[in-house]
Amino acid sequence: MRIVVPLQGVVQGRGGLVLGSLIPCALFYFFQLYIKRNRPAPAPASSAPPIHRCHSRGLLTPSLSARGAVVRAGDEDSLYYAGLRRCADDPYHPASNPGGVINLGLAENHLSLDLVGRWMEEHAGAAMLDGLAGAGEEVRDLTIRGLATYQPHDGILALKMALAGFMRQIMHGSVSFDPSQMVITSGATPAVEILSFCIADPGNAFLVPSPYYPGWDRDIKWRTGIELIPVPCRSTDNFNISITALEIAYKQAKKRGVRVRGVLISNPSNPTGGIVPRETLHDLLVFAAEKNIHLISDEIFAGSTYGSDKFVSVADIVDELEDFDKGRVHIIYGLSKDLSLAGFRVGVIYSYNEHIVSAAAKIARFSSVSSPTQRLLVSMLSDEKFISEYIKVNRERLRKMYLVFADALKQVGIECFKSSGGFYCWADMSRYIRSYSEKGERKLWDRLLEEAKVNATPGSSCHCIEPGWFRCCFTALSEEDIPVLVERLRRVTESHRSNR
Amino acid sequence: MRIVVPLQGVVQGRGGLVLGSLIPCALFYFFQLYIKRNRPAPAPASSAPPIHRCHSRGLLTPSLSARGAVVRAGDEDSLYYAGLRRCADDPYHPASNPGGVINLGLAENHLSLDLVGRWMEEHAGAAMLDGLAGAGEEVRDLTIRGLATYQPHDGILALKMALAGFMRQIMHGSVSFDPSQMVITSGATPAVEILSFCIADPGNAFLVPSPYYPGWDRDIKWRTGIELIPVPCRSTDNFNISITALEIAYKQAKKRGVRVRGVLISNPSNPTGGIVPRETLHDLLVFAAEKNIHLISDEIFAGSTYGSDKFVSVADIVDELEDFDKGRVHIIYGLSKDLSLAGFRVGVIYSYNEHIVSAAAKIARFSSVSSPTQRLLVSMLSDEKFISEYIKVNRERLRKMYLVFADALKQVGIECFKSSGGFYCWADMSRYIRSYSEKGERKLWDRLLEEAKVNATPGSSCHCIEPGWFRCCFTALSEEDIPVLVERLRRVTESHRSNR
Repeated sequence: MRIVVPLQGVVQGRGGLVLGSLIPCALFYFFQLYIKRNRPAPAPASSAPPIHRCHSRGLLTPSLSARGAVVRAGDEDSLYYAGLRRCADDPYHPASNPGGVINLGLAENHLSLDLVGRWMEEHAGAAMLDGLAGAGEEVRDLTIRGLATYQPHDGILALKMALAGFMRQIMHGSVSFDPSQMVITSGATPAVEILSFCIADPGNAFLVPSPYYPGWDRDIKWRTGIELIPVPCRSTDNFNISITALEIAYKQAKKRGVRVRGVLISNPSNPTGGIVPRETLHDLLVFAAEKNIHLISDEIFAGSTYGSDKFVSVADIVDELEDFDKGRVHIIYGLSKDLSLAGFRVGVIYSYNEHIVSAAAKIARFSSVSSPTQRLLVSMLSDEKFISEYIKVNRERLRKMYLVFADALKQVGIECFKSSGGFYCWADMSRYIRSYSEKGERKLWDRLLEEAKVNATPGSSCHCIEPGWFRCCFTALSEEDIPVLVERLRRVTESHRSNR
Repeated sequence: MRIVVPLQGVVQGRGGLVLGSLIPCALFYFFQLYIKRNRPAPAPASSAPPIHRCHSRGLLTPSLSARGAVVRAGDEDSLYYAGLRRCADDPYHPASNPGGVINLGLAENHLSLDLVGRWMEEHAGAAMLDGLAGAGEEVRDLTIRGLATYQPHDGILALKMALAGFMRQIMHGSVSFDPSQMVITSGATPAVEILSFCIADPGNAFLVPSPYYPGWDRDIKWRTGIELIPVPCRSTDNFNISITALEIAYKQAKKRGVRVRGVLISNPSNPTGGIVPRETLHDLLVFAAEKNIHLISDEIFAGSTYGSDKFVSVADIVDELEDFDKGRVHIIYGLSKDLSLAGFRVGVIYSYNEHIVSAAAKIARFSSVSSPTQRLLVSMLSDEKFISEYIKVNRERLRKMYLVFADALKQVGIECFKSSGGFYCWADMSRYIRSYSEKGERKLWDRLLEEAKVNATPGSSCHCIEPGWFRCCFTALSEEDIPVLVERLRRVTESHRSNR
């Protein structure tokens, strides 16, 4: 008797019956496995907006997209944002709201606003119009065209040149930057997003030494669908980046089937304020080359240094290495920190990879800086006397405020990590948490906010694995605020002692 | 003899053998089908950058992401962009480059730049600094804080209020706009992208009556992964939007398994310049309600009308409808067209859906307008005398230029669609194409560019299904350019006649 089984053409002969039965079964099993693995991620139903019923027509409001709903619910559960919202609702002011929340959460520099303000008062109008007064009709026409009509989306050449000069000055003249490798965006936030989009596809990952800037989880993950894999740095190691840890994380990701496309660091580190040593930068470049991945260095605080360690840009190391393929190296910069101009929304992608520059320049159409602001900045950055004076005075004020602030924390028994740059201290409050866990840290954050009315960013928001560290920004304070801060922190530290 | 077949538990009994063989076969077939349908789109290998080998280390430069490579290669094959690039390389100027390409491709209004220029000269400096001169220390400090520090990402309230007033004025006071339903972005380009992101997920689609603005294929598809389905409007129907055609396209998409999330229109239409009739807007709203989808109306040319048809905003109709669920209606606006300020990069999402407003406001952090520009615009838009004068004079100049331009085309035998708004004529050049096909149209575009040195946007770039239509922007020309244009167009039209 001939038995008809599926695939009998294949399995005729001895054992054919068994094989002919087993193969379809196996196929069926793999089919189920395939479906399971390739099923699209379920839409986040819980965060979707409630459905509104329109009574008379019985129609429903169409919902947000699944990703739109994720963004809407987005940052609700992060203490970093929760703290900032509290400060926005009830901001401390010595005269008008002395009971409000003191904000140590926002990395914004108010120490040198007077310098920028004075320049603006004296020059802004003329700067924007390129010193138009008294010019002929043709020049006037050209000037207004330069302001009002479409300009290159990735920034006008004059601004790129001025920025290249400024970056060089900030970095002590040790490196030069080529304007043609630059894309200007409306802030460093879109800069890092656009660069990430060009480097990695949805589901790909970046390795990110942690603790890292809490905003990245939003800036990079929201729209690009890239995964950030925190790679812990440890206090015992001075929060230095460990190549061994990167190596392990890389292997683990590979095992999970996740493609790692790059390493993302901040230098000076946000939130620790540490400066990445020259050797570490070198090792990172070698690591990136070995794995054939990208290296993104966010150097937005490059000029906001005050400590003994000297800042070294990755651009500096890249230039040193012979026969190194630079196309994997990219720098994020901007004027929000080093020039105190957060409201101007000016960010920079600086890349050694012409293909990435070209793709990013096209995407910059979604994040362009307005022409009046570009013109104004060309003038400001070209004012050499102002810029060198600003850099010098701002560094002095930063250093002074850092010392005052770190000393204030010391008065209440809080030690800071020895940092050299940025607008913040990385403060060790572990002795004030009741359980050595994220929960305990969360509790302390809550007590700081509710009892002391002080908002600081907990380490957990920065993916720090050791509980009890807080990022405390000091550059939006004035020296008069310090005694108030000390008195408030005491409310928490002293009650902690008395409760022991 | 018992025969062991797969699924024998299911198919025991009569016919079990046949079923037990057929079912796995069928499963195998569906498995293949499933794989085929769910296979991810292949990475555009051809557009990927070439791989660079680093000699000494034998390492490769890591590539762009697949999507980054798509963007980089992005607009290379569109005649719309090819034409614009040609103009950028060799722009016509009566004195300095009389042999250059006359650009009818870019929708930019130069007719009223003198008005904006004069205002800027007189007010810009003071406007940006809020009339600071002579103010006390505290006011100065507040002013510079308002400029230099972080501001709401979705625009300052003062600008939202000023824009709401301006939009109302542009729309003849027939509707009012609520600043709390507004999100300000760095241009209408990010506005439409951000709105689309919030409304639709990758693979979802919008129905878009065509011909439509060629930039949408880039602005909406590049990063959001949304499909645009052109729904043809016909010349015999005056390029009016057909609800029947939308209905058919909706059903076809559904059959393909594609979820339609909205209808996207421009009003006044870009590229035809037609104004969407009140009844059509009404029907569109009913259609959107029936299908429970969104309606996006791009009204960026609302104030740039000159014809006999009066512009009606969808906001006007929404307000009229009783018991209509407004949460599906969204408007795109901006200052690039109606205020001639393309370089300022100011766009608006106006939505009746609070969840979308809230999600879009968060995404606006990637596309913020710089504070100096926002302050400047608050002043400009609040200058009632200037604004009403500008609107009046600009409309007169537009109308005049439109008549001159349409007449010029007539001189060379080109008829224009009767339009009422926008910066362009929708010109019927079908009698000058040699084969009535997209190829014939492409050929004519090429001859216009190479022989006449005139860049116009072919209908195919706008997904027009009837060959021979071209969008010709006239607002960047001056009247002196008209005779030159006519003479150049004759090179093509006359040689066409003589070749017949």
